[in-house]
Amino acid sequence: MSASGNFFENFRIGVTFRHATPRTLTEGDAALYIGLTGSRVPLHSSAPFGQSLGYRGRTIDDLLAFNVAFGKTVTDISLNAIANLGYAEARFIEPVYAGDTLRAESTVIGLKQNSNGRSGVVWVRSRAYNQMGQEVLSWVRWVMVAKTDEAAPAPAASVPELASAVAAADLTVPPFLRLQDYDIGAAGSSRLWDDFRPDERIDHAAGMTIDDPDHTLATRLYQNSARVHFDALAMQQTSFGRRLMYGGHVISVCRALAFEGLENALTIAAINGGTHCNPCFGGDTLYAQSRVLECWELPGRSDLGALRLRLIGIKNLAPGDVDEPRVEHGGKTSYHANVVLDLDYTVLMPRRRVLNS
Amino acid sequence: MSASGNFFENFRIGVTFRHATPRTLTEGDAALYIGLTGSRVPLHSSAPFGQSLGYRGRTIDDLLAFNVAFGKTVTDISLNAIANLGYAEARFIEPVYAGDTLRAESTVIGLKQNSNGRSGVVWVRSRAYNQMGQEVLSWVRWVMVAKTDEAAPAPAASVPELASAVAAADLTVPPFLRLQDYDIGAAGSSRLWDDFRPDERIDHAAGMTIDDPDHTLATRLYQNSARVHFDALAMQQTSFGRRLMYGGHVISVCRALAFEGLENALTIAAINGGTHCNPCFGGDTLYAQSRVLECWELPGRSDLGALRLRLIGIKNLAPGDVDEPRVEHGGKTSYHANVVLDLDYTVLMPRRRVLNS
Amino acid sequence: MSASGNFFENFRIGVTFRHATPRTLTEGDAALYIGLTGSRVPLHSSAPFGQSLGYRGRTIDDLLAFNVAFGKTVTDISLNAIANLGYAEARFIEPVYAGDTLRAESTVIGLKQNSNGRSGVVWVRSRAYNQMGQEVLSWVRWVMVAKTDEAAPAPAASVPELASAVAAADLTVPPFLRLQDYDIGAAGSSRLWDDFRPDERIDHAAGMTIDDPDHTLATRLYQNSARVHFDALAMQQTSFGRRLMYGGHVISVCRALAFEGLENALTIAAINGGTHCNPCFGGDTLYAQSRVLECWELPGRSDLGALRLRLIGIKNLAPGDVDEPRVEHGGKTSYHANVVLDLDYTVLMPRRRVLNS
Repeated sequence: MSASGNFFENFRIGVTFRHATPRTLTEGDAALYIGLTGSRVPLHSSAPFGQSLGYRGRTIDDLLAFNVAFGKTVTDISLNAIANLGYAEARFIEPVYAGDTLRAESTVIGLKQNSNGRSGVVWVRSRAYNQMGQEVLSWVRWVMVAKTDEAAPAPAASVPELASAVAAADLTVPPFLRLQDYDIGAAGSSRLWDDFRPDERIDHAAGMTIDDPDHTLATRLYQNSARVHFDALAMQQTSFGRRLMYGGHVISVCRALAFEGLENALTIAAINGGTHCNPCFGGDTLYAQSRVLECWELPGRSDLGALRLRLIGIKNLAPGDVDEPRVEHGGKTSYHANVVLDLDYTVLMPRRRVLNS
Repeated sequence: MSASGNFFENFRIGVTFRHATPRTLTEGDAALYIGLTGSRVPLHSSAPFGQSLGYRGRTIDDLLAFNVAFGKTVTDISLNAIANLGYAEARFIEPVYAGDTLRAESTVIGLKQNSNGRSGVVWVRSRAYNQMGQEVLSWVRWVMVAKTDEAAPAPAASVPELASAVAAADLTVPPFLRLQDYDIGAAGSSRLWDDFRPDERIDHAAGMTIDDPDHTLATRLYQNSARVHFDALAMQQTSFGRRLMYGGHVISVCRALAFEGLENALTIAAINGGTHCNPCFGGDTLYAQSRVLECWELPGRSDLGALRLRLIGIKNLAPGDVDEPRVEHGGKTSYHANVVLDLDYTVLMPRRRVLNS
Repeated sequence: MSASGNFFENFRIGVTFRHATPRTLTEGDAALYIGLTGSRVPLHSSAPFGQSLGYRGRTIDDLLAFNVAFGKTVTDISLNAIANLGYAEARFIEPVYAGDTLRAESTVIGLKQNSNGRSGVVWVRSRAYNQMGQEVLSWVRWVMVAKTDEAAPAPAASVPELASAVAAADLTVPPFLRLQDYDIGAAGSSRLWDDFRPDERIDHAAGMTIDDPDHTLATRLYQNSARVHFDALAMQQTSFGRRLMYGGHVISVCRALAFEGLENALTIAAINGGTHCNPCFGGDTLYAQSRVLECWELPGRSDLGALRLRLIGIKNLAPGDVDEPRVEHGGKTSYHANVVLDLDYTVLMPRRRVLNS
């Protein structure tokens, strides 16, 4: 609630922050998001396509909703963050339509002071709700936050147990979703759930150079107020030397780059985990690589499956040149210097039998 | 009406220009404006928040409406302007909603030829109307305009008397506005009208680097056709050497930067005066400083007060480093070289008693 | 349908591609398009203006609809294009409103292998339909496409006959269009159809510098996936050395720059032909020059005429400095190095008698 944000010693397990500035998402946000990412996901592009599946129209892009909801948490949780360390257990629960208003809240679920005594890790579970009070999204993230008073006592360390992945049975499949009229021509590919196998790797050919005005426009659209993304003058004093690209926008761009090869991915059902491995800056060219982790049937649905995917975001290097996202240097493995994102997520995809119905 | 615009000798006291290109403002404009400024003003962000106060929904940002209305006046009034000298008596009269269409007209209310005989100052009162013919906005501005025919006779000098501020009694408070359900959590601060005192100063921590594509995108959105903002090649021939940032967008950005600390400012009721003290260019980092000038009760409202504020826009220097916007050099005072905006404006803000109702 | 696109040897005369990703166009797209171009065409700016002419509201900009429809054809037709050689017979048939969904298909109507055996020219007729199945737009374009298998046999050469212009009788005039309430004040000029004469030339004063983030934002909005516009790293390996500006956006910008002098051009009825004469890059400043080719009466309409215009797009040189778009060098004529667009198109414009009705 304070303009200077919260520091590590301000967080207490169990405290819930109700974040400011509810946001009505509209066709305007949807259009600008397409302009910022070039996304061609049919469910977010075409109202009749959405209606043919039982949706009320096209939906707001899953990651636009996520980034806007995430943006609300920044002032309370991460204005003084040193690093965003990870995501887990993100679930996409209700579709978001133009006209819906999102608000968000976060509960502290873990705390651990760093051994240096100058910072600590805060785990929060955040939830976004629409104007009808329905839970639309939830996710866990953990961030390293500075202390402002180093003399403040360390809290009892409490590290939450997090699932390695949202289980198939916990994925939300809209109950109204019907695929008997599914149009593979709309997405532009005939590859369906049945056509993927674990360990398959797709090097997506598309690349996109992101300039400073691109990522700052996106990050303002998300109403994310973290200063590292906007204030080039202040960033000159940091080791980065310039504005940092918001990691959530890196996810958005990489997801759009990964469209070709995964055209029939209907919607994102979960983000199981994610790491921003290296920073991105204006002028970087992003590429994407996808690896199929698991192919899941879904309880009660013979028309739809889930794919657990690993999305590797790469900067300034063709994806064919990255065989392993992690590399060994002197006996230690760490992320390849050009790998910027390692995202484990789950999509819903129609199964081949929808073509025969 | 001419593509080459009007020159000083073309203006006559009392003549009214009806400006071209009415504009329907939509959710699309609202979204892009958030993208361009990062604005988090709740009334412009959330439809349910607006409805809880008696509005039909969220409203189009006051300054988006102002900049669009202003943009319409450029072709007739300031295409040949040498300088925008000031604003006064700007009143925000009716809320603007997505779907409303604005048109604008301007009446010449003052003329004074400069002693050099090559230019003069033109004062106009401009008004914007919605599609129902309601006056939505009005303002006075004065600009220095070149003569094209230096032999044209000087008009009788006529300088209008302008109020130093729109008086509290002249501020428009929407008659339907009700604050009994006012939600301070939506804005993210519990500081209300009662908590401000004249002479308080807020150095807003947020800074924003504005690149050329940012301000040109904004200025095109406003349909402002002044060439100094767009034509980098022609600007190379000027003393600036490059594109000038549109001053109205500087106001928009500084207002967004000044959000923290003034979160409960509901809406702008008036701009009492304003000066663009120094030019801004792509790459400049903007900061904002607010000073409270006056705290006004409002006739007939115990739930709402007005704050008259001074918004100082600063480039490339932290706001804490600007103690006085005007500095003395050799016995003369002039604006600090890093001060780009000195805006005197009035906002409406709920009073503490709304929390007890 | 394949991520690597089609090569010359994959095209067969008569084959129709049904392109992916239908797109719902909204007020969001309309707003962003104004932001990207600064367009002030009244029919695309003001809902009441459109309604006064019999339209349901304001319409989606003709060129926004064209660029979006065009974008859909890229994956199937021109992902491996070496050059976009030309357009012809583009007809704007139905108005597009916010909420309409466009889909597109293309039929191969001509093929001719180049003498080098490594590429060939493909002619396609593309059509865009709205969600009601109405044909909204159609056009022919031809592109030079690489072969991937040089040993593939050359098809029988077949070059379609194309009209030099869409004839006046073939232009679509909306049957509901009524001009008795036409408001010349809305457009800001009293120059109507009767005031133009063949061979008139207008050097439009406005210029606009387009930065890389501008044209990439536009091209992503159009969901155009051609990599040459986005991937600066890959483009370093080409003779261009950097990202190419999408030619359709050059048309959009030049049309907006050509507004002054042609304010009463209601709508584009046809594109008769067009050439992207030289490439544009981020940082180029664009200007426009218009030449009146023909002034046509329209069958059955005494209130409306058509102007066939030639729009010359120029980079980095004032339009007054280009007397001839084509210049002679050593006995051969070719385009002036600063001319980037040569577009032959037809607009509808009210006739003077609407003022007396």
